[in-house]
Amino acid sequence: MKRVVRETPIRVAGFRFGASACGIKPSRRADCAVVVADEPAAVGAVFTRNAFAAAPVRVGQERVADGRLQALVVNSGNANACTGARGLADARRSCRIMAEHVGIGHELVAPLSTGVIGQPLPMARLERGIARAVRDATPGGAWRFARAIRTTDAFSKVVHERVRVGARRATVLGIAKGAGMIAPDMATLLVFLFTDAALSPAQARWLAREVGRGSFNELSVDGDTSTNDSLYVLASGRAGNRVARSRDALDGLRRTAVGVGERLARMVALDGEGATKAVEIDVTGAASVAAARRVAETLSRSLLVKTAFHGADPNWGRIACAVGYSGVAFEPRKVSIAIDDVVVFRGGSGVAGARARARRRMMRDEFCVRVRLGSGPGRARMITSDLSPAYVRFNSAYTT
Amino acid sequence: MKRVVRETPIRVAGFRFGASACGIKPSRRADCAVVVADEPAAVGAVFTRNAFAAAPVRVGQERVADGRLQALVVNSGNANACTGARGLADARRSCRIMAEHVGIGHELVAPLSTGVIGQPLPMARLERGIARAVRDATPGGAWRFARAIRTTDAFSKVVHERVRVGARRATVLGIAKGAGMIAPDMATLLVFLFTDAALSPAQARWLAREVGRGSFNELSVDGDTSTNDSLYVLASGRAGNRVARSRDALDGLRRTAVGVGERLARMVALDGEGATKAVEIDVTGAASVAAARRVAETLSRSLLVKTAFHGADPNWGRIACAVGYSGVAFEPRKVSIAIDDVVVFRGGSGVAGARARARRRMMRDEFCVRVRLGSGPGRARMITSDLSPAYVRFNSAYTT
Repeated sequence: MKRVVRETPIRVAGFRFGASACGIKPSRRADCAVVVADEPAAVGAVFTRNAFAAAPVRVGQERVADGRLQALVVNSGNANACTGARGLADARRSCRIMAEHVGIGHELVAPLSTGVIGQPLPMARLERGIARAVRDATPGGAWRFARAIRTTDAFSKVVHERVRVGARRATVLGIAKGAGMIAPDMATLLVFLFTDAALSPAQARWLAREVGRGSFNELSVDGDTSTNDSLYVLASGRAGNRVARSRDALDGLRRTAVGVGERLARMVALDGEGATKAVEIDVTGAASVAAARRVAETLSRSLLVKTAFHGADPNWGRIACAVGYSGVAFEPRKVSIAIDDVVVFRGGSGVAGARARARRRMMRDEFCVRVRLGSGPGRARMITSDLSPAYVRFNSAYTT
Repeated sequence: MKRVVRETPIRVAGFRFGASACGIKPSRRADCAVVVADEPAAVGAVFTRNAFAAAPVRVGQERVADGRLQALVVNSGNANACTGARGLADARRSCRIMAEHVGIGHELVAPLSTGVIGQPLPMARLERGIARAVRDATPGGAWRFARAIRTTDAFSKVVHERVRVGARRATVLGIAKGAGMIAPDMATLLVFLFTDAALSPAQARWLAREVGRGSFNELSVDGDTSTNDSLYVLASGRAGNRVARSRDALDGLRRTAVGVGERLARMVALDGEGATKAVEIDVTGAASVAAARRVAETLSRSLLVKTAFHGADPNWGRIACAVGYSGVAFEPRKVSIAIDDVVVFRGGSGVAGARARARRRMMRDEFCVRVRLGSGPGRARMITSDLSPAYVRFNSAYTT
C-alpha cells in the first residue's frame, strides 16, 4: 500500500542521524545510514534465530554484550549474509571505519545490513558512504536515516511518542524497515527504538525483549526470521530521569515502547505490493501458548485466508479449514470464529445472518479475526496482511 | 498452466463412469460424477487428517471399513464440509439415492464432495444429477468423470498404465482433481485409482497407503490437508489374476500405481494460474525424517523461493534462508544445495561459476532442488510449483 507520509521533524536528545548514497543499491538511492550518540548509550537487542544468521548479526551480538554502544552503521542493498569469514571481517571493518570517523572505540559500534544474500559487501563504496553519512549526521536526521535503511519498502516507517519517566518527560522514537506482504518469509526486519530516558543496560535489554515479544515476534514469529532480523533499543539518558530501581517504575515507558513497536509492526504488515489491510489474528482457548501460536501462524500463512481478507469475504470455511490442518488438537464443536465482534462460526457450522455484518468489519483497513478453541488457556496474537490481485483473480472465483 | 489434453479412450474392465450437470456449480458445468463397478470391488482409502473433516469423508471412512464398495458418487461445487448433522445426513442420503439407481445396497456406496465449504448440499438437484449420471455411465466414460470432479482445475488429470500382475496384464487408471499453486493450502485433492487387478481388501488398503505416501503426501504433507482430501483405490478383479499370497508378488503393481500417483501429483502441482514448473524438493542428511519433512515443507511454502523458481533464478540465498528458519538443527557449514546436479552452495557460501549452469536447469519445466544437511539419515521429498506474476514483479526486483 502506497501512503503519503508527512515527515514531521523529530528529535531525541543525545542522538544524531545521518545517511548517504554510496552505490551499494543499483538505484543510487541512499543506502548507508548512521546513528551517533553524544555519549555511550545503554543498549539492548534481539536478533534473528535463523541458523544462517548474517555476519552483522554475529558481530552485533558481541557488541551489545556489555550493554553500551555509541554508534550504529547500517547499509541497505547487501545483507552480508552467507558470506563466510570475509563477511565477518567486513562487518568488523565497517565498525572500525565508523569508529574512526566518529572518534570513538570500535567496540562501541554495531553493524547492520539488509539486502541481497550471498554477495560480499563492496567495502570501498561503503567506506566512502560511512564518511559522508557521519558528516551528514544531525539531530533532525531521523527521516533520512529511515529512508536509507529501506530495501523493498514502499514507505518509511517512523513513529514517536512522549512518555513520563520518573519526574521527567522522555521521547521514544521508533524506526523500522520491512515489508509484510511476503511474511512469514519476510524481507529483513530492522527495528530501532531510540529514547532519551535514562536506563541501565539490563533495563534496555528487557525493553528490547518486551518490544520484540509484544509486537515483532507476533509479526514474524520465532524462527521464521530472515538471516538479518535485528531489533535495537538505545537509551541516551538525556531526559535526565534517575535510573529506576525497579521495572515497575518503567511500566509507562514499557507500554509506550510496545505501543510504538505495534504501530511499526502494522506499518510493516501494510507495506508491500498487494497488502491493503493489517489483520490481527487473536487465538484463545488453545491447550498451550505454543498451540495458539501454531494456529495463528497457520492462519497468517494461508493464502486462501489472506485472499479472503482482501476481498472482505467473511469466508469462515477457509479459516476453519486452516485451523483444522494446523495440527493442533481441539474439539471442532467448541470452536468459534469471529470478525471483530461478529461471530460467524460456532458449534460446527456458520452463524445465520452474520455475513453482512462481518463483511462490513472486513471492509476496514484493520480488523481482528478471533478464533476461540475452547480447549485451554493458551493465547497468541499475530499481525498479518491480506493478499491481492493475482491470487484474488484465481481464488475469488472459488467461492462464487 | 493451460495445457491441451488429448482425451484418448481408456477403459478398465469392470468399471463404468458417468457424469451430469445438475446445477450445483453456477457455471452449469458437469458437477456430478459416478463410478459403478459390475460387482463389489476391493477398496482401500486414505483420508484427510483435517480436524474439520467433511461429512463425505466421515461417511466414506465408515463405508470402506469392510473393504468392499461397488459405487462412488461425487459432486463438485459444494464440499459438504462444516455442515453439521445435516451434512452427514445429506452424504448418507446421496449414497442411498445412488444405491437405488444402481440397484445395490447403500453400504456399497461411498460419497465424495469438493467445492465451497459451509453450505448445505442442494439435495433435490443432486438427486436429479445422480439419476442422469448413472444412466450416462459407460465403460468409456473416464474423461467425463474426470471433467465433472474439477473445481478450480485448469485441466483434467488422467493417467493410465498397463502392468503384469501374476500371469495376467492389468490396467491402472488414475484420475485426480486439485490445483497445486495454492498448496499447502490446497484446494481439495481427490484421487482415484481404478484397476482390474484382483486384490484382497487388505492389499487395496496397502496400495492406497503406498500411493498416498509415495506421491500425494509429499505434495500436500500430513496435516496440511483440506477438509475433503480423499484417495480411493478400487480393484475389480476382472484381469483374472489369482490374488497374490504376498505383497512381494505385487511389487510391479505397487511401483506402477505409485508412478501413476506421482504423475498425477505433478499435474496437480502444475495446475492453477501462475504455476509453470513442477519442482521436486529432495532433502537428505537430516537428523530424522520429520526434520527432513520440515525443511522440505518450509521450502515448498516459501514465496521467495517459489518466485525464484519461476524466474529460473538459482538464488541459493533464499533457499538457505528458508532452510535456516525451518527450525531444524544442523551445522551451517555442512549444508549443501544443488539444482539437479549443479551444486550452488557449500561450506557456508556460494559456489563460484555455478550460476549459469544452475539457471539452465531451472529453465526446464521440471527440476529438483537437493538440500543436503549433513546431520543424519533423514530424507524427505516433496513436489511443489513455482509462483508467478504479481509476486515476481515485486520479488524479482529484490535480487537485481
